[in-house]
This record gives sequence, structure tokens and C-alpha cells, in this order.
Amino acid sequence: MPEAGPASSPTATAEVPAQRLAKVAILLSGRGSNFLALHDAMLRGEVPAEIVLVISNVAAAPGLARARERGLDVAVIAHRGEPDRATHERKVLAALRTAGAEWICLAGYMRRLSAELVGAFPQRILNIHPSLLPAFPGLDAQAQAWEHGVKVSGCTVHLVDAGLDSGPIVVQRAVPVEEDDDAHRLAERILRDEHRAYPEALRRLLTTPWRIEGRRCVFHEEAAANAAAAPPPENAEESVAEDAVRG
Amino acid sequence: MPEAGPASSPTATAEVPAQRLAKVAILLSGRGSNFLALHDAMLRGEVPAEIVLVISNVAAAPGLARARERGLDVAVIAHRGEPDRATHERKVLAALRTAGAEWICLAGYMRRLSAELVGAFPQRILNIHPSLLPAFPGLDAQAQAWEHGVKVSGCTVHLVDAGLDSGPIVVQRAVPVEEDDDAHRLAERILRDEHRAYPEALRRLLTTPWRIEGRRCVFHEEAAANAAAAPPPENAEESVAEDAVRG
Repeated sequence: MPEAGPASSPTATAEVPAQRLAKVAILLSGRGSNFLALHDAMLRGEVPAEIVLVISNVAAAPGLARARERGLDVAVIAHRGEPDRATHERKVLAALRTAGAEWICLAGYMRRLSAELVGAFPQRILNIHPSLLPAFPGLDAQAQAWEHGVKVSGCTVHLVDAGLDSGPIVVQRAVPVEEDDDAHRLAERILRDEHRAYPEALRRLLTTPWRIEGRRCVFHEEAAANAAAAPPPENAEESVAEDAVRG
Repeated sequence: MPEAGPASSPTATAEVPAQRLAKVAILLSGRGSNFLALHDAMLRGEVPAEIVLVISNVAAAPGLARARERGLDVAVIAHRGEPDRATHERKVLAALRTAGAEWICLAGYMRRLSAELVGAFPQRILNIHPSLLPAFPGLDAQAQAWEHGVKVSGCTVHLVDAGLDSGPIVVQRAVPVEEDDDAHRLAERILRDEHRAYPEALRRLLTTPWRIEGRRCVFHEEAAANAAAAPPPENAEESVAEDAVRG
């Protein structure tokens, strides 16, 4: 469940499984290439997580078909036909809870999340955006960047808050704009980096102590290195991601 | 003189000196470390340019003392005591013209240029800014970036227009934000990249055909490679920087 850190689960047994996997739900509306990159990284053992549910608001989303091919649980929860946003989101939230999702990774999910849904998974919802935020939020970020004439763009994995592409930044990767780029070629090259950045971000959140300071997402690599050698202290000051930091 | 391209100087002799140096004026208000980086690169022969004047609006600017040590012509044109901005800028403009400046490089010049001054050197004024624009324009860009929690920042060399840090981008260099950074350490590491980016930008503008498309500064490296082997066509379509592209 999306409770934060070991301090909130004092009754947890001391024998935390060495390979406890975080339970991740994916929300997508299209091809879901970032979902596939995340899943591939999990299957390779690079990210200590498993996908418990893939939700799409679009029945025909190609990403949903790929999820079925991979034997993952899927749910179509269409927003069309619902009387309002709240009704749709209640169904999404119910599905997430039934699946036992602890983390949500947005992978081309073309709907804004309400403050209620964000509040139900505080600091446990990730999104990826094809620019170096805070530059070029919103739609068509790659075309925005190309037209602006930047020489460096990239991608951003961030925690989701109630704003638009505005939550604390977890990972960014810079991608140079080449002289012979157009917006499409630039988007393709950024996408290749997205497929690395998203697994890297989730891996770091699950394996390295971190906390939010102001709006910075601060990782403590040293603490992570120590945690590999010794069990974490009983009253860890750090907010660690679930109990994935292993003693 | 700041006229654009060879098309505007049809009477120019065919024997363009192979090492014709662009005449650059520097405007600074402080230590001028980017001025020194530019000058060093010129002295090493990496940028086909020479500094014809260093102007400061602050008599005590350390960069001015360094310019004198290097035997460069300097001018103190204080804005304090002037009745208005226009009077100050007229003096700056007169000094630039007397020195025969073709390009202006701002190096920590803490005053906005008026549209009149910008218009007197169209696409011939450069500035450097310690962020990846359009993110974090204005003052204290490094601290803005650090507090925002970006994982990648950098620096931007851009042509100056009448806006704030808004002109077409010539060169950007990405600088990763390290976990143990503070705003000061980040600023120091960005500064090291500024000292590379600024000479690189001026060198490219002087040696590679380029033009402004929309708000993109587009370089044509292939044309530059060809120009090294053959003289440029009589009616070059490209806007090239002065006549620094050599036949």
C-alpha cells in the first residue's frame, strides 16, 4: 500500500524478503513504449518491481494489447460515457486498490489526474515528459523545443503533483539537438533516452533513500551504499521508498 | 561594421585575408571571466577575432583591470550620473563605433540593452546565461535551477534581442546537477562550461554559415566544410557571419 517508509510499518517482520518487488500499476492511453521499457527492465532484474495492472482509458490503445500479450492484468476504464471526471477516477482508484498497487507509472496517459487521485498515492505517482522541465511543459514538448531553437533538450521523470508537469524531478537526461533534426527526429532520439530514464528513476526511488526538500528530490547514495552492507537503523531519518532498501 | 554578410559588401576585394579577424567589443560590469575565456581562445587562435574595446559601466570592475593588464583598449562609461538611459547608451554606441566594433559580447554586463542599441548591431550581439534557456531566465539562474530541483542544468550562448535572455540560441552545454551540489557549487561547474561555450559560439558564428529561421539559429556545417575546399558562390543564399568564411 502507498504508505511511506519503514517508520510507518513498525510491525514488519525483520526478515524482509531480499527481492521484495514493489507493486506498480501502469496508466496509458497509446502505444505505451515507456511501459514496455519499464517492464523489460523489471524482467531483466534491473528494477525491483512488478506490474500488477495496466489500465487504459482507451480500449484500442496498442499498449494494452502488448500488455495482454505479456500476460499482464489489464483493465479498460473508459472515460467516455462517464457523467463526470470524478466518476471515472473513482473506478480507476478502485481498480488500483484491488490490484494492490503501491506505485503508479504514467506512460502516455492523456488525462490529468485529479488532486484526489494524486492525494491517494502521495509521492508514489511517476510521469515521464519529453523535455527538460521546467522548459516546455504540456503537449508536443519536442516540437516546442525544436521550434524554440534549443540546442539541448531531453526528458524528465518526475513525481506527479496536482499541477501540469510540475512535480519534483527524479531523473533528467539531456539530448543534444542536431543540426539536421526536425521535430520528429528529435522526438525519436528523446524517446530512446526516455526508455532509459524511466527505469532508472524507478530503480533509484526503490533502492536509494530519498526525500523531498522544498521541491527537490534528494537522493542519498552514501546511505544506499551503507545499507547494502548493514541493516537500516530502526528509526531511519530518511524517507525511503517502501521497504525496498534491503538490510 | 555591423552590416550583415557578403551580399551587403559587393565591392569587397576578392583577396579576403585568410586570417581576417572579426572586431569584438566586450561589455562587462564585474570580474569578466567570460571575457577572459574569449580573449584566451582568440590568443590561442581558436576564434578568428580580436578585442578592440572593453567597456564597463562600473569603474571598479575587476574585469576592466584585467583588460588593462592585457594591453586592451578600455573605456569606463558609467551609467550613474547620467540623466537617463538613452544618454548613457549614446555614449556606449559612440565608443563602439569609434572602435570599429563589429560584434559585441556581453560578459556579465548588468544592464539591459535598449532596442536602439540592439538594433544598431542586429544579430551581432551575444550574451551568455548560466542556465539552459528558456528555463530560468533572469538573475540567479543557478540558484533558481538548484531550488527547482532540476537534475540537468547548463549554460546558453544566445543572440541578444530586446527581450530578457530571449534571443536565438547559438550554443548550449548541459551540466548535470550532482547530489551533493549546492547552488554555489553548481554555479562554479556551470561557469567552467560557460568558458568553453562562449568561444565555441563565437567561433561557429564566424566560421560556419548560419541563418535565423523562425527563432532557430541554424548552422550549415556541410557548407562550411565545402567552403574550406572551394570559394563561396557569388550569390550565397546563406547568411554568413561577416566574411569570415574563407574561400
